[in-house]
Amino acid sequence: MASPLTDPATDFPRWYQDVLVAAELADNGPVRGTMVMRPWGYAIWELVQGEIDRRIKAAGADNAYFPLLIPESYLRREAEHVEGFSPELAVVTHGGGKELEEPVVVRPTSETIINSFFAKWVHSYRDLPLLINQWANVVRWELRPRVFLRTTEFLWQEGHTAHATERDARDYALRILREVYLPTMVDLLAIPVVTGHKTDRERFAGAVRTWTCEGMMGDGKALQMGTSHELGQNFSRAFGTQFSTETGTLEYPWQTSWGASSRLLGAIILCHGDAAGLRLPPAVAPAQVVVVAVRDDEGAVTAARALRDDLAAAGHRARLDDRVDVGFGRRSVGWEIKGVPVRVEVGPRELAEGQVTLVRRDTREKATVPLGGVVAEVGRLLGEIQQALHDQALAAQRARTTRVATVEEAVEAGGAGWAVLDWDRLGPEGEDRLGAQALTVRCLQAPDGGLALEEGAGGLLAVVGRAY
Amino acid sequence: MASPLTDPATDFPRWYQDVLVAAELADNGPVRGTMVMRPWGYAIWELVQGEIDRRIKAAGADNAYFPLLIPESYLRREAEHVEGFSPELAVVTHGGGKELEEPVVVRPTSETIINSFFAKWVHSYRDLPLLINQWANVVRWELRPRVFLRTTEFLWQEGHTAHATERDARDYALRILREVYLPTMVDLLAIPVVTGHKTDRERFAGAVRTWTCEGMMGDGKALQMGTSHELGQNFSRAFGTQFSTETGTLEYPWQTSWGASSRLLGAIILCHGDAAGLRLPPAVAPAQVVVVAVRDDEGAVTAARALRDDLAAAGHRARLDDRVDVGFGRRSVGWEIKGVPVRVEVGPRELAEGQVTLVRRDTREKATVPLGGVVAEVGRLLGEIQQALHDQALAAQRARTTRVATVEEAVEAGGAGWAVLDWDRLGPEGEDRLGAQALTVRCLQAPDGGLALEEGAGGLLAVVGRAY
Repeated sequence: MASPLTDPATDFPRWYQDVLVAAELADNGPVRGTMVMRPWGYAIWELVQGEIDRRIKAAGADNAYFPLLIPESYLRREAEHVEGFSPELAVVTHGGGKELEEPVVVRPTSETIINSFFAKWVHSYRDLPLLINQWANVVRWELRPRVFLRTTEFLWQEGHTAHATERDARDYALRILREVYLPTMVDLLAIPVVTGHKTDRERFAGAVRTWTCEGMMGDGKALQMGTSHELGQNFSRAFGTQFSTETGTLEYPWQTSWGASSRLLGAIILCHGDAAGLRLPPAVAPAQVVVVAVRDDEGAVTAARALRDDLAAAGHRARLDDRVDVGFGRRSVGWEIKGVPVRVEVGPRELAEGQVTLVRRDTREKATVPLGGVVAEVGRLLGEIQQALHDQALAAQRARTTRVATVEEAVEAGGAGWAVLDWDRLGPEGEDRLGAQALTVRCLQAPDGGLALEEGAGGLLAVVGRAY
Repeated sequence: MASPLTDPATDFPRWYQDVLVAAELADNGPVRGTMVMRPWGYAIWELVQGEIDRRIKAAGADNAYFPLLIPESYLRREAEHVEGFSPELAVVTHGGGKELEEPVVVRPTSETIINSFFAKWVHSYRDLPLLINQWANVVRWELRPRVFLRTTEFLWQEGHTAHATERDARDYALRILREVYLPTMVDLLAIPVVTGHKTDRERFAGAVRTWTCEGMMGDGKALQMGTSHELGQNFSRAFGTQFSTETGTLEYPWQTSWGASSRLLGAIILCHGDAAGLRLPPAVAPAQVVVVAVRDDEGAVTAARALRDDLAAAGHRARLDDRVDVGFGRRSVGWEIKGVPVRVEVGPRELAEGQVTLVRRDTREKATVPLGGVVAEVGRLLGEIQQALHDQALAAQRARTTRVATVEEAVEAGGAGWAVLDWDRLGPEGEDRLGAQALTVRCLQAPDGGLALEEGAGGLLAVVGRAY
C-alpha cells in the first residue's frame, strides 16, 4: 500500500504536516494559528500531563487556577515583560455587548496576574515558599504558526513560586529542571535533552536566568522543550509583594516560573517519527499494543479479543481492532502511522498452529510467537522499544553534534546539527553573527557539559543550532 | 474562638462569601466576574474532574481539545444559539498588534466550532457515533457574578456527539445523565438531585430537549448541576454535516451536548456547609483526615506523623498538622472551616494513656480512641460521614418540597423550598406568572417522578423553585 506520507528525507516539514493529518493527531483551527487536538493527540497529551503533574506535586507545588483575562495595565508593570509579550497579545475590547473601559488581554503567560495575588497572600516568612502550578491555555499571536510547535493558543502548565532567599529560588528552579522536566523528557518521551542556561538574548522576558531542556529533532534542529526561570525580585517589586522576615524586616521575595507545553507532542513526532509515520515511546502511547484480527473469522476475532483482555489485565494499554470489513493492509498501515509500539496479528492459519505474529513498530521486525507467550513477549518488547527509541535519538544527537573552534565552523556544523564552541570566543557579538545565519545559542553549559551553577564562571560552552 | 463567618441563618449569601475566603477556596479576579481557584478549591475540583472524566470515558467518549477563539460568524449559523449567547460574548478585536479582519469570540460553549469539524470528519455511518468530550475554560460575560455559581470564566467539560438516529442520540443524552452526572452528584458530592427535562423557556439555546440534574441548596434554592441536551439536527444542518447511510442515502446526524462545571464546587458549599464552615463529603476532600499535633511535644509530633503515615498507607488522603507554633484552637477552627471530614488530635496527656481524640466534622462529635484503633475507626467514620451528609441533604430536600395545586400555592411554597404541581395546570402562561415572582420551573417529570421519556406524555409534574 502506498504511503500517504511525504518522505521525511525529501521534505521534513511536509512529512511532519502529513503525519499530523494521517495519524489524526491534530487539525488547524479556523482562527489563524489555532489548533484542534484530536483524540489520538489529546490522549498522548493526557499521558504527558499525568507524568508532569505527578512530578510537580512530588516537588511540593499545589495546583490552582487563575483567570484567563488580565487587565492590560498589569502587563505594563514589568518593563521587560511587556516589551517581550506586547507584539503577541490578543486583546478583548468588548464584553457583554459593550466596549470595555479598560481592554483586557487573553493571558500569554500568567506572571502578572499570579503576582498580583501573591501580593495579597504573602505577608510573612511563614507563607514562604509559596509553590503554585496551573494547567491552562495561553494565547500568543503567532506570525508563523505550526501545529504543536508554535500555535496561537497552546496548552501548558506554568509554575509560579515565591521564596525567602535568592538561593532557595534558584534551588527550586533547578529542582524543577532536574526532577520534573529532565526525567519527563528522557524517561517518558525517550528524548535525550541537553540542559543549560540561556544567553541574555534568549532568556524569558522578565527573568534573570532561564534554564532550559533542548532536544534534537530528526532534522538536526533544536526544540526548546521546557524552561525554568529565576525571576529575581523583578515581579515582587513590580507588584509590591513583601514579607516580614524572622527578624522583622520587610523584604521582597525571590521568585521562579517554569513551563512545559503541548509543544512536547511536536517533539515526539519530530524526534522519533520515520517514513512510516509516528513512533510512540510506549510510556506515552494511548494504545501500547493493538491486537488485530486479520480477517472475518470467528475464531480469530474471539482469540484477538481474549488476547486484548489478557494484555489489559497485565497492565498494558491494549486495543482490539476487529474491523474485519476494512482491509487488513489498510488497518496495519493505519496503526503504523499512529505509532502504536506493538501490533499483534491474529489470523486463522497461524491460530490453527497456536501462534500469532508480533510486529514492533520501531524496527518493523516481525516474529511468530505461541499464544501462551504473547503477554510476556509484549511486556518485554515494550521495555525494549522505550529504550531503543531513546538510544537511537541519543546516538543521532551525538553524531550530529560537532565541537568547533570558530563562528565560521559553527555556521557550517549548525546546518545539519549542533555546534559546540567556547562562549568566550563567541560572546553576544558572535551570537548576533550566528543570528544572521538563522542560528541561535540554544544553551550555555559548564566546561564538563553540566549546568553552570557558579555566577560568572568562565570556560562556558555554547550549544549552537537552528531551532523550531 | 470567634467564628470568622457570618451566621448562615442570618445571611446565607454573605456566609457563602465568607466561607469562600476563610476556607481559602477562591478569590475574585481583577476582571469583573472572574475568579481565582486557590489550591484548596482546585484540589476539590481535581477530584470532581477525575470522577467525571472516568465516567465519561466509561461511556465511550474520547477527550479532545478545540480552540478557545471562534470566528464570530460561526455563532450566527444557528439562530437560537446566537440569540442565546450574543449578550454574553467577550470579543477579541485585536491580535498581534493589529485590528483583526473578522472579530473572534472567546468560546462561551463550543457547539459551533466543534460542529465545523464534525462536518469534516463525518462522512459515513461507520464514523458514527462520534463521541467527543473536552475539558476547557469558557467565558460568558456575567452581569451578576458569584464565585463558582456564575462567573465570567469558568471551567467545565463539554461533551459533543453525533449519531445516526434520533433514538441513539436521545439514548446517549440520557446515558450521560444517568451514568455520569447522576452518580457523580449523589455518590461523590453526596447531593440528592432530582432529574427531569427543561421547559421550552428554560432549555439550552439550540437544543430540542434539555435534561437536567437539580440540587437543593441549604437555603432551599435550586442549583442546576449538570445538563444533557438533545440537539436534534439543528447544528448538523447549520454546519452541513451529512453522512451516507448503509443504504447509500445522505442524512444529517442527530446530536447531543452536555456539560458540568466548576459550579459544582459552589454546590458542595451551599448544600453541605454549616455555621462552622465547609463540610466536605470524604469522596471529594483533598484531605480526608488531618492529624493534629496539639502542642510542641516531641512524642506527640512523632506519634502524629506516624498516624498520618499509617492512615495514608491505608489509602486515605491524610495530612499532618505539626505547626505547633500556631495555637491549637486556631488550627482546629481552620480545619473545620476547610471542611476536613475527620480530625485526629494527638496530645501528650492522652498519648500517655495510649489514646487520641477523633472529631468528625459533620456532627462535631468527639470520641477517645486507642492508638491501635485509629486507622479502622477513621475508615469507618469516612464511610459514615459520606452517607450522613447525603441523607441529611435528602431529608432537607424532602422536608422543603411541597405538593401544591395552584400557582398561588407554588409561589408560597417556593419561598422556602420547592413546589411540585401539575404542568397541565401551570403551562407556559403560568410559568410566566411564576417568573414575575423570581420562580422558575426547574424541571418537568413523569407522574411517578421519573424522567418523562414519552413524547407528548400527559400528567407531567413541574418542580418549581427559586434558583441560583
